[in-house]
Amino acid sequence: MHHEFTIPTRGQGLYEFTAGIQSWVAASGLQEGLLTLFVRHTSCSLLIQENADPEVQTDLRAFFARLVPPSNHPSMSYLRHTYEGPDDMPAHIKAALMPVSLTIPVAGGAPVLGTWQGVYLFEHRDAPHQRRVAAHLA
Amino acid sequence: MHHEFTIPTRGQGLYEFTAGIQSWVAASGLQEGLLTLFVRHTSCSLLIQENADPEVQTDLRAFFARLVPPSNHPSMSYLRHTYEGPDDMPAHIKAALMPVSLTIPVAGGAPVLGTWQGVYLFEHRDAPHQRRVAAHLA
Amino acid sequence: MHHEFTIPTRGQGLYEFTAGIQSWVAASGLQEGLLTLFVRHTSCSLLIQENADPEVQTDLRAFFARLVPPSNHPSMSYLRHTYEGPDDMPAHIKAALMPVSLTIPVAGGAPVLGTWQGVYLFEHRDAPHQRRVAAHLA
Repeated sequence: MHHEFTIPTRGQGLYEFTAGIQSWVAASGLQEGLLTLFVRHTSCSLLIQENADPEVQTDLRAFFARLVPPSNHPSMSYLRHTYEGPDDMPAHIKAALMPVSLTIPVAGGAPVLGTWQGVYLFEHRDAPHQRRVAAHLA
Repeated sequence: MHHEFTIPTRGQGLYEFTAGIQSWVAASGLQEGLLTLFVRHTSCSLLIQENADPEVQTDLRAFFARLVPPSNHPSMSYLRHTYEGPDDMPAHIKAALMPVSLTIPVAGGAPVLGTWQGVYLFEHRDAPHQRRVAAHLA
Repeated sequence: MHHEFTIPTRGQGLYEFTAGIQSWVAASGLQEGLLTLFVRHTSCSLLIQENADPEVQTDLRAFFARLVPPSNHPSMSYLRHTYEGPDDMPAHIKAALMPVSLTIPVAGGAPVLGTWQGVYLFEHRDAPHQRRVAAHLA
């Protein structure tokens, strides 16, 4: 089974879409199998993270903003791909550091996410985007 | 086929479970297919790494401890999610930097791991844990 | 279906093999399914990145060279696994930070790569290598 999720983003940060995934798997009727998610972009990531305390998301953003500052920051003056904006090349770097694809076993009719695991689109660009995540279930 | 591995950990570090995986695949009788591993937690990672020289594991731990110091380290004073201990938010960050899922083709009745590749659970917390890794084979 | 791609490398950098993957999927005749790639080494990575501006690749190399300098660099004096050369342990660390496996849904007879997504072998060693990437299609 194939599907595409569209996730609208409005600036850098984590956007949860766990519920949409769970609904789609439930509607499929599949009891046991494998769910694959694949993001069709090079400036955002997929991420499984704690969905209990929202400050985890704030801290994740803060860490990656420090690890990969905007390309107009003095420490990043060695970057050459800067014509798409100061958030663009850092977005590509973050996309290299975090997953482009996730595979999650399905058992008992649901993805086997742990108690605190949520599935997120991590947007690395400042401008709003419509992000497409391809999903495969078999 | 579905299975869950339980890996007991006693502090930060890499715990190899390659042999358990190979035994399970062999017992299944499957000759060609796909093995998926998925860790059901947000404060540890799955990792494929060199299993020859144990100092590689020591160095990996040392690198990530420097890249993401404990939250009571002066350089990490911007972190907010600190009430679960100084090792907790760094654990979530490391879990974002390293895989939550691995997919390994199976051929000739075994995962096609390279000569030096071992499969590890990378524990990022200090306290002992029972870590659950879901496995799917098809 | 199982296949192994061999990618010759001549020093650190990104080597694209998107066309080889697309040809193999097309030749298989499979219309809808799942493509898995798995690199059988611990000192190089798989990466999906922008294939439009080659400076993105230059910048990715530059970022990771700064994040993980050679083991003879003063800032890396804590590393112990140094006897295979100054590029070896940094290669293992980069292999922990970037994917060892990628899963890409197949639809309409092709991997659902986005417009700007190319598939690369990211070589982290200085010496030439023949890198093997196992591929599974089902």
